[in-house]
This record gives sequence, C-alpha cells and structure tokens, in this order.
Amino acid sequence: MSEQNPSFVLQKANSVTFEDRPIPQLKSPYDVLVTVKFTGICGSDVHYWTHGAIGSFVVKSPMVLGHESAGIVTKIGDKVTTLKEGDRVAMEPGVPCRRCIRCKEGKYNLCPDMAFAATPPYDGTLAKYYALPEDFCYKLPESVPLEHGALVEPLAVAVHITKQAEIKNGASVVVFGAGPVGLLCCAVAKAFGASKIVSVDINEERVAFAQKYAATHSFKAQRESPEESAARLIKECELGPGADVIIDASGAEVCIQTSIHALRTGGTYVQGGMGKSDITFPIMAMCTKELNLKGSFRYGANDYELAVGLLASGKVSVKELITGQVSFKDAEKAFEDVKAARGIKILIEGPQ
Amino acid sequence: MSEQNPSFVLQKANSVTFEDRPIPQLKSPYDVLVTVKFTGICGSDVHYWTHGAIGSFVVKSPMVLGHESAGIVTKIGDKVTTLKEGDRVAMEPGVPCRRCIRCKEGKYNLCPDMAFAATPPYDGTLAKYYALPEDFCYKLPESVPLEHGALVEPLAVAVHITKQAEIKNGASVVVFGAGPVGLLCCAVAKAFGASKIVSVDINEERVAFAQKYAATHSFKAQRESPEESAARLIKECELGPGADVIIDASGAEVCIQTSIHALRTGGTYVQGGMGKSDITFPIMAMCTKELNLKGSFRYGANDYELAVGLLASGKVSVKELITGQVSFKDAEKAFEDVKAARGIKILIEGPQ
Amino acid sequence: MSEQNPSFVLQKANSVTFEDRPIPQLKSPYDVLVTVKFTGICGSDVHYWTHGAIGSFVVKSPMVLGHESAGIVTKIGDKVTTLKEGDRVAMEPGVPCRRCIRCKEGKYNLCPDMAFAATPPYDGTLAKYYALPEDFCYKLPESVPLEHGALVEPLAVAVHITKQAEIKNGASVVVFGAGPVGLLCCAVAKAFGASKIVSVDINEERVAFAQKYAATHSFKAQRESPEESAARLIKECELGPGADVIIDASGAEVCIQTSIHALRTGGTYVQGGMGKSDITFPIMAMCTKELNLKGSFRYGANDYELAVGLLASGKVSVKELITGQVSFKDAEKAFEDVKAARGIKILIEGPQ
Amino acid sequence: MSEQNPSFVLQKANSVTFEDRPIPQLKSPYDVLVTVKFTGICGSDVHYWTHGAIGSFVVKSPMVLGHESAGIVTKIGDKVTTLKEGDRVAMEPGVPCRRCIRCKEGKYNLCPDMAFAATPPYDGTLAKYYALPEDFCYKLPESVPLEHGALVEPLAVAVHITKQAEIKNGASVVVFGAGPVGLLCCAVAKAFGASKIVSVDINEERVAFAQKYAATHSFKAQRESPEESAARLIKECELGPGADVIIDASGAEVCIQTSIHALRTGGTYVQGGMGKSDITFPIMAMCTKELNLKGSFRYGANDYELAVGLLASGKVSVKELITGQVSFKDAEKAFEDVKAARGIKILIEGPQ
Repeated sequence: MSEQNPSFVLQKANSVTFEDRPIPQLKSPYDVLVTVKFTGICGSDVHYWTHGAIGSFVVKSPMVLGHESAGIVTKIGDKVTTLKEGDRVAMEPGVPCRRCIRCKEGKYNLCPDMAFAATPPYDGTLAKYYALPEDFCYKLPESVPLEHGALVEPLAVAVHITKQAEIKNGASVVVFGAGPVGLLCCAVAKAFGASKIVSVDINEERVAFAQKYAATHSFKAQRESPEESAARLIKECELGPGADVIIDASGAEVCIQTSIHALRTGGTYVQGGMGKSDITFPIMAMCTKELNLKGSFRYGANDYELAVGLLASGKVSVKELITGQVSFKDAEKAFEDVKAARGIKILIEGPQ
Repeated sequence: MSEQNPSFVLQKANSVTFEDRPIPQLKSPYDVLVTVKFTGICGSDVHYWTHGAIGSFVVKSPMVLGHESAGIVTKIGDKVTTLKEGDRVAMEPGVPCRRCIRCKEGKYNLCPDMAFAATPPYDGTLAKYYALPEDFCYKLPESVPLEHGALVEPLAVAVHITKQAEIKNGASVVVFGAGPVGLLCCAVAKAFGASKIVSVDINEERVAFAQKYAATHSFKAQRESPEESAARLIKECELGPGADVIIDASGAEVCIQTSIHALRTGGTYVQGGMGKSDITFPIMAMCTKELNLKGSFRYGANDYELAVGLLASGKVSVKELITGQVSFKDAEKAFEDVKAARGIKILIEGPQ
Repeated sequence: MSEQNPSFVLQKANSVTFEDRPIPQLKSPYDVLVTVKFTGICGSDVHYWTHGAIGSFVVKSPMVLGHESAGIVTKIGDKVTTLKEGDRVAMEPGVPCRRCIRCKEGKYNLCPDMAFAATPPYDGTLAKYYALPEDFCYKLPESVPLEHGALVEPLAVAVHITKQAEIKNGASVVVFGAGPVGLLCCAVAKAFGASKIVSVDINEERVAFAQKYAATHSFKAQRESPEESAARLIKECELGPGADVIIDASGAEVCIQTSIHALRTGGTYVQGGMGKSDITFPIMAMCTKELNLKGSFRYGANDYELAVGLLASGKVSVKELITGQVSFKDAEKAFEDVKAARGIKILIEGPQ
Repeated sequence: MSEQNPSFVLQKANSVTFEDRPIPQLKSPYDVLVTVKFTGICGSDVHYWTHGAIGSFVVKSPMVLGHESAGIVTKIGDKVTTLKEGDRVAMEPGVPCRRCIRCKEGKYNLCPDMAFAATPPYDGTLAKYYALPEDFCYKLPESVPLEHGALVEPLAVAVHITKQAEIKNGASVVVFGAGPVGLLCCAVAKAFGASKIVSVDINEERVAFAQKYAATHSFKAQRESPEESAARLIKECELGPGADVIIDASGAEVCIQTSIHALRTGGTYVQGGMGKSDITFPIMAMCTKELNLKGSFRYGANDYELAVGLLASGKVSVKELITGQVSFKDAEKAFEDVKAARGIKILIEGPQ
C-alpha cells in the first residue's frame, strides 16, 4: 500500500481494485480531513459491487466504495471551530447544496443536488483520507468506541425512519425485517417510547435475536394470505384494534401488504426497506382506514446528532450488531459476507 | 302517500319500495326531528341499490336509502339550545359513539361504532322525517338555499379529503377525477390557497367543466404508461419538480400510479376515490421520494361547519353541480341517472 | 359513620363536616359505581378548603371535596363492556359534554361544560361511592397497587403538561418547581426521551430529591435578576444556546421570567404551575427568539391511559412520592399537611 | 453623485451622509449583483437613524441603511442558473450561515450568524449596487411592478407572522395595529382563509382604511380595562367564545393584554409587533385557556416566495400602501416621514 491515499475502488460490476488516490484537498475553509478508521458495509454497497448500478445511478467511471465510516480528524480548515485534530468522529456521507428549497425548509435529505459518498459520480469513504464539512462530522463522546461510530450511519437511517413514524409514548410498533436497519428501528422505537415492539421476520434466528436485542414481541410470518397473517399478528401480539405504527424494513411485498391490514384505523406506516419497484397494494384498506403512509430516504437534520446521542446515553447499543471485522486489504471479503447474509454488520478497518 | 313517515326503502339488490314507517322518536333530549326536503344521491347509494352491499356492509333487512340531505327542524328535544323549529339545516348522516379513543382524540370519523345513515343496519334519510342530535345539524345561513344544503355532504367529503392534503398557500394541486367529489376538491383546494389546480379526467367534457368551475388547468389522460403520463402532466402544467399535492378522486389504478410519479419529493397524496381493493403500486418511488400518503374516510370534526362556511362566504359554489331534481315518488329515477352518469348531482325532493 | 355514603363535605371556607349522602345512581347505562379507596390531596383542594373558592369558581352550597382517587368497581351499567365488578380503577374526575366543538376536535379538557369533581357545583370523590362513566375509569394492571392509582391524577396532569412541550428525543428540559407535579414532569420528560432534565427550586432538599428521583441535573435559584439566573442556569447545566424546553410547575413570577431568558431560539415553554394572575413578562425576548408558549389545563384524550401505562411499564414510579396516609376520619389532617407543605403526597383512605 | 456606488450612510445617531462606496464584489459564484431601484423604510430603519442602535445591535462604524429593496440583476456569478442580467427581483436582506442546526432544521431566520442588511456590522441596500446570493433574489413576474417589489419585505414579515398563527380556513382573526405590517397581516390572513378579520387600532382613520383594504371588521380601542376591551371586542365583532387567532402588530402593552383575554380556549396568539421589552401579562389566563403563543422573527423558508406569489396572484395588493416616493438624494425625507407617521409606506428611488 501507498503512503498517499489508498482506496478501495469499484471499476465496474464485480471488479474492485486497490488504488492510490491523491489525498483530498479541503475545498472550503469549513472542511476537515478525516483519517478513516472503520467502515461498515450495507446492502446498497453490495448492490453497486454486484450490479455496478442502483436504479438510475450507474457507475460510469471508477468509484471508491463505502459510506458508513468513522475516523479521526487529521486537518481542519481555517474557519472550523467545532473540531480539532485528533477528534474522533462519525462521518455523515451526504452533503446537500444548502441552497434549494428542500434544504431551506429543513429536508436536506431530499436535496436534488446531494453529493453522496459512493453514489456515482461521488467517491466513497473506503480510503485512508476523506474530506467533508465540519458540520457533517459528529464528535463521538469518549464512552463511544470508534468502531461503534461506523454504525452511526445505519442508526441514523433507523432514526430517520422511526421519526417518520411519529411514535407516541405508549404506542405499539411492528417492525418487518430483522436485518441491521430493522433491528435498529426496534431499538430506536423503544427509545422513542413504544411500549410494544414486535419484530417480524421469516428467519426464526433473527427474530429471536431481535427479541433479545430490543423487541418486546416477535412474530414469524408463515405461508398464509396477508389478511390471515395480519389477523394472526394482531391476535398473537394482542394489538387490539391493530398496530399504531408499522415500519417496513424488509422491502418484501407480502410484508407491506400484511402491514396495511394489521394497522388500526388512523395508524401510521413507514416504508424503510428497499425491494421491488412495484407491488400489489391494498389501496382501499389504506383509504378507508385513513392510514398515514410515509416514505423514508436516508437522514436529515438532527438525525446523526440524535444517533450519536442514543449511543452516548446507552439508550441504543450497537455492539451486539458488529459480528465481524476485516483489515482494509480484505475489504472484498466483507462484501462477500454481506452478500451471503453472514452475520449482521461487518466492519472494514481503515488502511494503516 | 301516507300521513306518517313515507320512506324509500331498499328491500334487496335492485328492489326498492315506498313504505310508511313510524315517525322517529327523539331518543335523547339533545335530538331534533327534521323534515327532509332535499336529498342527493351518490355512487355508494347506487352501489347498495344495485348490489345490496358494499364490501362487508350487507343489507340483510329492508333499509331506507339516502344520506345527503337537508331539511327543516320540526321538533326539538328538551335540552336543545342551538336550534329551533323552522331552522333550515344540513344533516350530517353519521353519529359516532362519542366514547371511544378515536372519538375522544378528535377523529370521530374513525369511530368503530359509528351509526351511519343508509349503511346497514341503519336507515337513511330518504323519508319524510329523520331524527338526529342537534350537534349533527348545521343551520344554513339565509344566503344558502335549502337545495344547496343537500350538497353539504359531498362538500364535507371534499373538505375532509382536502384537509388531509395539508395544502399550503401557493401550492400546486392535481385532482384526478372530475366527478362531484373531484370537482368539489378543486373548489376547496382553491379556497385553501392552492395557486395551481389541475383537474385530470379521461372525459374531455368534464375537465372542460372543471376548468370553468374551479381548476386553473386541466389535463386529459391518454393511453400511455403512468411514468409517461406523469412526465407529460408535469411538463404541460409546468409543475417544476412535480406537484406539491395530488388528490385522487377517481379510484382508478392508472390515476393512482400516475400520481405517485407526478409528485415532487416530500409531496403529499390523498386517496379519496373508491375503486379496486388492490392495485399495482409504485412503492419504491413513494419510499425514495419520501412521500406522504393518506387515506380519507367520510368527514369529522369541523368539516360540516367549514363546508357550510364555504357556501356562506361564496368561496365554494355548488349550484353549477345540481343538474337535476326529481320528486320523491320518482326517487328511483335519480338512482338510474347516477348509475348512467347522467348529469353531476341529482336531488330528490322530500315527500310532501 | 353511616352504612350509606359517608362523605367529606366543605360547608364553606375552613369548615368541613362528615355527612351521610345518598349513594349515587347510575345516570346512564354506560356508568359505573366505584367504591373509593384512596384519594390524594393537592393545592387546589386546599385552596377551596381555605378560601371557599378558586377564582370565579365559588362554593355556594356544601360540596364533597377530593378528585384524585382510585377505587374498586362495585356496580356496572347495562351497557358497560370494558369493566366488571371488582376491577381496580383510577378515576378521571372530569366528564366533558362530548358534544361541543372542543370535545369533537379532540380537546375535551377545554369543554366549557365540563363536570369536574370538587369544582362547584359538582361534588368530589371523598366519599364511599362515586359514579362515573366507564370510559373515565382506567383499569389498573395487577402490578400497580391501588394506592398508586390515586396518583394517576397528578401524573396525568404532568403527562398533559409534558405532551404540550412536544419534547423530542435528546432534548434538554428544565422544570421549575419540585412539588408533586414538577417532580412528575421530570419523570415524564425522561420517559419522553429528554436527555437532560434540570430540576429547579429554591428548596435545596427538594431539588436533591428531584435529582435522585428523575432529574439529571438540579439548579438552585438565588437572589439575582432573571437574566443573571438564566445565564447561570445555562452555564452550570451546559445548555449551550439555551434549553430546548422549559416547563414551569411553580407559578412563580421570577421562574417564568427566568425561563424565557433561558430558552434557546425556537424553544418551547409550557405554563403548568398556578400563581399570580398577572406578572411582569419579557414579551420581546419571547418575540425575537420566536418561542412557542403553551398553557396547560388538566388532561385530555389519552392522558390517563398513558399515565397508567407509564406506571405499568415502570417508566415512571410514584411510590417515592407517597409520604403519608391517613384514615377517612382524619381527612382534614391531610389538608393541613398539604397546606403546611409537609411531605410530597398524602393519601386519604376511603371510608370503611 | 459618483459613477461608482453612491450609498446612504448612517454615521451615528441622527447623522447621515451620502458616500461613494466601492461596488461590491461577488464573493461566491452563486452571488449576483443587483442595481437597487426602490427601497422602503420601516420603523427599525428609523430607530437606527434616531438612536444609532436597536437593543444590543449598536452602530459602531458607518453603515449603509436600508433593507426593503427591489432592483435589477446586473451581474451574475459563474454558477448562477436561475437568474440572468436584466431580471427584476425582490431582495431578501438576510443571509444565514446555512450550516447551523437552526438553518438545517428549516428555521434559518433563527440562525445566530445571520448577516442582515443594515443591522450592524452589515451594510444595507440604500446604495446603487448590492450583492447577494441568487437564492435570496426572487424574480418578479411581469405583472408585479418593481415598486411593489420593494414591499415584498414587509409582506414577507406579515407572511411569516401569519404562518406562525396556523390559521385554519374559516377562522376568526383579530389583528392589533393597522400600520404597514398589521395591514399586510390582515391581507395575508384573508388569503390564508380567515373568514372574519378584525383590524384594531386607536387611530380611527387607520381602521377605516384597514376595513377598506382587507379586514371584514374593525374595532377601535377605548379607555377601558383589557378585560372590558376584550369583552366588547368579542361582543361587537360576534366572536362567540373568543377569537381563534390574534396577531399583535402593535407592540402595545394594552393590546397584548386585551388579546389574551379575547382569545377562545385553545386559541393562538402571535407577537409580531415590537415594543417595550417587559410588560404586565395575564399569564394565568394564558395557562388555563391553554393558549398557544408564538413569537415571530423576520422571515424564513418559503416566505419570500409566497409573498411574491400572493402579489402575482392578486390575492394581496400593496399599491394602496405606497403613499409616497422620493428620489435618492431626498432619502432623509423618507426617514422623517416615517418618524412622523406620515403616510403608510414611502419608497426611496435608487440612485441614477
């Protein structure tokens, strides 16, 4: 490896290389340079690796992968006031334009000009150094290990999804899918005051883990109609007139259908999981039950702050989710493990 | 006809009779007896007439039809303070339990014990007399003819749908479907401050009427994919990044699909129209655009008051929508006209 | 004492007697009769006792005192479905009209026709039997002792105040006043996700208790200007640009003034405590900091449910607050103790 | 006058001069240079002129005055895409940091690092040229004369105040104060759907103008207590249980007191007007009526857009408010007129 800025680069689908890239310059006096120490891998990273694209985002020229990172501040711009060299930070990987109406009205995650790490044409964080604005770096309190800082990204995803759900204290919440984001949604729902949290998955091991981790109840889907599944869910988990809130972190058609049938009138549904672009959907149940449905896209104002705060306070724990760690030179192995659904969250160490 | 309480009764699908029923008693000192003067007919009335049921609501014993009525207060209970004999009133046809959590939290339209006129097993308003609580009767100001009072019901439906849309002043609003409710949604959206109101229908005559009535733009759907239709809608109506709000008052699958593609990120969609229970739905567009979707069911707190207020202030006009009027003995003709989609809104006069 | 319905009656200011009243009849088939077992006393009870009035509410004829009660269901009306004889319940002491616009829009605590226990002319709960609608009785889970059920009333007050504050997870919350309601507001703020909870009082012992009970920080007010006090509060408790939320549960002028100066721009203030009707108020600070101020009055939809839920889940504990218990015949002693600010919450046992 | 950048400069209290300043450079590729054509004067401008300070904002070195301006784009930065030379624009005079939590959460008006024209140490717009970011320039449609563009600033103030009031269609709104902002609040309240708009002032001529301009009712305050004034206001203007919304655009103590007594339970009050920093305030009425009080500070996301939209649609008209126009060399005369309360809004033409 080089002395410069060793980087893990996707050349095209299924083809990755290690490259030595120039060390990023600070483009603004408000920027900082971070030495990346730990990076997690998620399904979208793997999708770029295996397909070279996600939807209309196509990798046309070599792109550094990775966007779930934590590291150490190594250099700061002239106007940086909140960080200093040596600070341990979680890195928010998407920087919005700050000028459009979505940015100004408080929804920068919907900025059409977002520059997001490892989303073409922007390079990701799987490198020795990464530059970003100080206000997108979140200092970790001493109590939070740097490894956990790499999980702030998926936790911020879960925070955003769960905020969309507008959970009231005492609410019943069902979370479909017990992968990393689904598990974190259970934990955040608990921190947000849900009194009943049901984790649903087809994988028995996962729901068992979920119940140990943060859910109060679990439910295993079976071969049955969505209506039957919803009725059984309501009955077995004593959801009364239906669940107050359902979060989908699975993206699976049958889960989405079951959710709509399992909600109470006036309940809230959040689509967090990614799956087929079009599905068969019980639109009239949604209409006559006067449900509230919301999408959820990445994270926005206050989400990273809150994610760090949840770790700092111990309301959410992520150490149980880290099931593996590989060195930078073995980065591809982490992608293979995620692809094979081995473990929950695997971290790649930054280059030495 | 009788001296008592002549009523228009659905015996079973496609079988209606005139019956003389007992004059309703005031069950509570807060009730009033109204002499029904005008009743409008809508799609759900026709559906009961032709099918004897709507979904799980099945007509098992003879049921008086009708729920869009206005009349004159004829008798008042001991504790009634806000109405007197002779008052002209719009009649809200559904009375909730007032005791459940949905009622108490301000969403009585979602009350599971709602007693709704002409929804089995509750009799409707197509009779000489109808009794209901004073707080579900809304006094019409002198400026509003009693005929228009019969249209407060569909106007309240439109008010509720459009409230669900949380329209901000200056917003762009697209309304799919130019039937009575769709037209009224255009008018209410205008009263709520929308600056651009696009009426969409496949019927050219209807969209032309809509534009004369309350829309600022119209759009005629064609044989094309939902994505193409959405792109053309955005372009032709200059909706920039997409519409702020879309209301479906059609219930048609292709309209719902087009809507999701035509909304801007963070936009709001309201399902008002009734149609197929399950449709193919672009769930991932909804997720990644972080849309807000809402059902809409009947009407609730303040909706009738506001509907009457909109008529009183002249912000909404309904006289253009009344395209026919028949006497009580010809009531079935009104059902036939609605079934055949003749005219917009046909009124049945109360029995003499 | 009698076999009938022994009651503790305020004749006029400073004059109480024990009377035997008739056992209340169930006025509606939805009513239940409760045998009162425990009743707490609060400042407003004492105010009626000492002044015979609170503001415009004047005791003109003898009135049974008490409104913070729990008891056992003894008789149920014909249509009662959710309770049975023997159920242990917390009793919500105010029943609204269920018909006015405030009731219908979900704010029944603002109903102008509220019938509230021990508010003239309505009798209170310090009697052997008390009748109320089933939906204003809240079944206690087995894990909650009946004594604690008497504290659901002040806890519901705190729930309502704290809901008004719209606390976001991770927020900093300052509570002025460490009496029963202030203490409970600290506990509820914690359950609602506040990460920093500062209890402020002039009584050192009380803030010490508060910090042991539910606050994360405490602050002792001194002789200084409100601006100085606010600056010191912000500095000592590390509130950065100011507190996100401040709740006043003291009613004291200087606390209210300090609060406005101690909030961050865009922060939220809730007036929970009762005190002087008019005070000197920093209106321009409120204007230019664009603060949100809210009153809080009693409790409404879902507040009692949530209060019981918080006890059931252990998120809020009330046993530390019960500092005394007297028998029914010694009821006046409880009033004397509250007047003298002895202890935190004193319970009166129901008559045998 | 010079060829360069003639400017109207406040040297210190009561001392203004004309100076030739350098033409501003575009500091960012997103900036534009505007030739200022019309500038309005408001009370805060006059306050700096007469006192050399507003609160803690003290003019320590000479400062160009003026912040209510419209002009013509004269030069654009490299990355400007939405404007071109020759565009007629309303100029938003405050540019936030875009990086702090207030900016990111959608409340940039509360940014602590706001650079606001004619607020020390930032120069104002009373000059030939002024540079600002493209996204703080709002293109005027052809239908809006450039003179009216100078009133977009006070209109945006009124839009922000009135948005804070969260007016529901059909609401009753009382506006205290019939100066420029109070009048514009009446007009915006109307555009936002208020059905009853009461203008209150002690100046009979002004309330008469208000009623001709946008109010539906007017009320003249008299020598009486706030409670009496509130009772008379409610009675004379038929406000039932009290007003839904009250906006103060006067800053006068008695108006604020009257407002609190004239609101219905659960009503909303917005403090828009500036006056004494501390007043006597009926805090208990605010508490027990469970009012919502809000400050209002300048304007934020979407306010200028909406203000321009209201002018473009004709929903709000400002031509009636322009009661005078002076040339740049007579700028001080405009200040004298505003100080003497002559006319409503006086415009200063830009230097030739």
